[in-house]
Amino acid sequence: MKIALAQLNYHVGNFESNTAKIISHIHQAEEQGADLVVFAELCVCGYPSRDFLEFREFIGLCEEAAQKIAAECRNIACIIGLPTVNNNPEGKDLNNSAYFIENREVKAIVNKALLPNYDIFDEYRYFEPSTTFKCIDFKGHRIALTICEDLWNTLENPLYVTRPMDELITEGPDVMINIAASPFSYNHDEERIDILSDNARRYQLPLLYVNHIGAQTELIFDGGSLIFDKTGELVDELPYFKESIAYYSLEDKSDVKLLQPSTKRTRKEGDIEQIHRALVLGIQDYFYKSGFKSAILGLSGGIDSAVVCALAAEALGPQNVMAVLLPSRFSSDHSIKDAEDLVKNLGCKHEIVPIRHITEAFESTLQPQFHNLPFNIAEENIQSRSRAVVLMAMCNKFGYILLNTSNKSEAAVGYGTLYGDMCGGISVIGDVYKTQVFELARYLNREREIIPENTIVKPPSAELRPNQKDTDSLPEYDILDPILTQYIENRCSSGEIIKMGYDESTVRRVLRLVNLAEHKRYQTPPILRVSPKAFGMGRRMPIVGKYLS
Amino acid sequence: MKIALAQLNYHVGNFESNTAKIISHIHQAEEQGADLVVFAELCVCGYPSRDFLEFREFIGLCEEAAQKIAAECRNIACIIGLPTVNNNPEGKDLNNSAYFIENREVKAIVNKALLPNYDIFDEYRYFEPSTTFKCIDFKGHRIALTICEDLWNTLENPLYVTRPMDELITEGPDVMINIAASPFSYNHDEERIDILSDNARRYQLPLLYVNHIGAQTELIFDGGSLIFDKTGELVDELPYFKESIAYYSLEDKSDVKLLQPSTKRTRKEGDIEQIHRALVLGIQDYFYKSGFKSAILGLSGGIDSAVVCALAAEALGPQNVMAVLLPSRFSSDHSIKDAEDLVKNLGCKHEIVPIRHITEAFESTLQPQFHNLPFNIAEENIQSRSRAVVLMAMCNKFGYILLNTSNKSEAAVGYGTLYGDMCGGISVIGDVYKTQVFELARYLNREREIIPENTIVKPPSAELRPNQKDTDSLPEYDILDPILTQYIENRCSSGEIIKMGYDESTVRRVLRLVNLAEHKRYQTPPILRVSPKAFGMGRRMPIVGKYLS
Repeated sequence: MKIALAQLNYHVGNFESNTAKIISHIHQAEEQGADLVVFAELCVCGYPSRDFLEFREFIGLCEEAAQKIAAECRNIACIIGLPTVNNNPEGKDLNNSAYFIENREVKAIVNKALLPNYDIFDEYRYFEPSTTFKCIDFKGHRIALTICEDLWNTLENPLYVTRPMDELITEGPDVMINIAASPFSYNHDEERIDILSDNARRYQLPLLYVNHIGAQTELIFDGGSLIFDKTGELVDELPYFKESIAYYSLEDKSDVKLLQPSTKRTRKEGDIEQIHRALVLGIQDYFYKSGFKSAILGLSGGIDSAVVCALAAEALGPQNVMAVLLPSRFSSDHSIKDAEDLVKNLGCKHEIVPIRHITEAFESTLQPQFHNLPFNIAEENIQSRSRAVVLMAMCNKFGYILLNTSNKSEAAVGYGTLYGDMCGGISVIGDVYKTQVFELARYLNREREIIPENTIVKPPSAELRPNQKDTDSLPEYDILDPILTQYIENRCSSGEIIKMGYDESTVRRVLRLVNLAEHKRYQTPPILRVSPKAFGMGRRMPIVGKYLS
Repeated sequence: MKIALAQLNYHVGNFESNTAKIISHIHQAEEQGADLVVFAELCVCGYPSRDFLEFREFIGLCEEAAQKIAAECRNIACIIGLPTVNNNPEGKDLNNSAYFIENREVKAIVNKALLPNYDIFDEYRYFEPSTTFKCIDFKGHRIALTICEDLWNTLENPLYVTRPMDELITEGPDVMINIAASPFSYNHDEERIDILSDNARRYQLPLLYVNHIGAQTELIFDGGSLIFDKTGELVDELPYFKESIAYYSLEDKSDVKLLQPSTKRTRKEGDIEQIHRALVLGIQDYFYKSGFKSAILGLSGGIDSAVVCALAAEALGPQNVMAVLLPSRFSSDHSIKDAEDLVKNLGCKHEIVPIRHITEAFESTLQPQFHNLPFNIAEENIQSRSRAVVLMAMCNKFGYILLNTSNKSEAAVGYGTLYGDMCGGISVIGDVYKTQVFELARYLNREREIIPENTIVKPPSAELRPNQKDTDSLPEYDILDPILTQYIENRCSSGEIIKMGYDESTVRRVLRLVNLAEHKRYQTPPILRVSPKAFGMGRRMPIVGKYLS
């Protein structure tokens, strides 16, 4: 039996393009003589479709698309994923299903049993878990077909009380197929390989695994579909961050063979390399899928906006990036020069819009209210917000999307101005700590200087008052970031972090700052997710809560 | 047996105040000779504690608080709700539990079996559902204790495959107690009474039900704890939107008697009356629980900001409300007069800050980029955003929280300026359609004119260009709002709405506008929830999705 794995970039709710893409890959696989082509979980509607799933009409469109797809399966079978109506009157209205289509008909339906409902996942919001399990017979093979999380109930930390493969194995399958929607984070590919390899070894069956690639707003799927032999050895790996179709044979029972040169990575990429690829794809898909071409951003001369500008230039082409320098009376000369050097290195468009007259107009207009009260955060924020108004006006006039340039460290501690530098359609590095931003800058400069050296080496500053430095208000980033990681990614308490050797008052102050900034983060743009715990839909915190704050 | 029901206002994560409040009501009930005092679901930590629940330290603090509470139960038993560690290594880490405390010890633990995971609820994110059921024997009575949703698996639309009371009834209980966290929406009190009454009648047992009151950011709990006899007759109802403790006797098995005058409502309040009470409580608790006293808002002379100003004055006292008039060159004379009349009627503070110099500074600064391109949405939004910068500067200078004044109709169709009039710490009427805002204005004027008549009768306008009217861009609100209700609250498709008799092109246009505005709503403040489907955590939509858009 010849099996094709199709790792594609879908678009949530875009039935027209998803269906066309699936059908064209069915034809392609058929031409290559494949017996079966496998697509990813919920590929028909895209993942995550979120509350679109609550519309009967939307579910009807999924079924309609599935029928169109089935009609194209002439001399080839296929597996697709889609939401279906739960026929049991008890429980949730839907199932997260896989259709096995043969001879233009749906021959078998498999429903997902383990529904992830943590971090960014909300599957129990929509779906009823399956409690029945059955293998699929096809061309002399018996397939144990499961859906993503179904294989993820690990022995070490079992999140569920059932394990679907323990049921399916009793029917004596000779191959496992798993269709998935497993989003990227910089340490997730390793985890995925380990868990799937464990499954192959435990059940002594070859395993073919198909993932999504492409970004859906903040969620980035990295592809990297996987093929294991029955000893748990990784036989092949589809490319990361790229659409791909690949073919395998399953002649001799329980033995998988490649039918093309392997695309298995010769080495695991470093975190920063992977983050770089993920962010470029995230920007590309955000613009492409929302029908926009051009980005705008404010360039301060600092490292955050420089890195975002370089990523945007790579994702969209420098001709589609407008960098705006918005100097105030506190901007240093080197800031302007550093920003201009960057623009030159990248070849993107730029404008200089000094905001001095604007901030003066705010200050003189507010003089009757502010009298002679001393300059403070109010005037600092007026500068940041004036810049946002200018950038948004240019968006409205010329059709750009504004890129947000906040990093994760400042988003964490609330070191940013709401409706000022916290604006934007999408946050590019809001899941990248400041220390990682420096690494990213060095990585971007790996072949030639793109980010000016001075931007990298000078002390970070918001330049909203004379001689301001980030370290006036915050610990050094190499202290701050590890504390934040322990609190945010690892959910350690202050006591546990202090025991690790960090200064007690610093830890308490940092955790308090994080919890007090929840109201600001609530109103920030969606953040491209590259870590196992990003701000946004995967981290849901009370705003008026009183814990550590 | 004498039972006290304590309906209290908790604060998420504030163990100190929640514990003190619970203990003081234990003492009070003990002094009144009660045998048992019942508190609400998850009262120890507040509801919803959301991802605070993922911190082991937080769960430890819950247990610590429970032990402090237990130590106070000398001659009285109590029921409290808290998260506890799931001792089964399989499944989620926590249970949503009730402790039955007697003689200073936890005598029984009941875990919730039906975990709501829809709309604003995410309980399956944290908790493992219980699969075992046991009654509690106390002073000759056998109590069937359940937690909120456990009684909500209705016969008509069973969301779950089990029904806890069907198990508990086999042990022959003589009373049901249900502790709950059931948030307000304008039609929810009726539904609650129906479902609980059905339970009392079906199992032929009296039922005592204790709810939260008070707001946690956007979620408002209305109290209205309920007592039914075994025929399903409503015996008593605790006050709505108010803390309260009440006493009942259960002498003769299966008969509940009041021990004080009934507070049962003589008539159901209308939607608008209820919404009014909910919004006032929502504002109060947002400010009180975040440690702020004073609000600021922009007054346009229009009905939305007028209604929000009146609600804020009622919630915080007029002396704690700063109303700011921010006329531009397009503001009409009547707008200023109407706003000044409102301020006079309410007795709140006000300032006039004309924004002309500011918008001129933006326009002249941007002249090199905009050249002589015609006035359009860019310049309109500059006005709205300039106002936001002024208001936020006053917040930063004087410590106000900005109130957002967008209504649900405009939030739905994206008729508002991101980082402009869409700013604020909390959105007061973002879940109130424009037609309801008019009703609310009439209701606020029920005793004397507060909202100026001219504000109510003039055609709505954003006044961002000469002679602008809302109806230039949108259908009349009495067409728009019913279409939005069908789409948002009832999740009807365009086809279904058109079949109801609405104009096809209007329906398609409105639904498209709603879906296209998702990126704007993502960045709006939390919205006080008063309907069964509010924007925010209860409605989770893709942003780059392509459905109806």
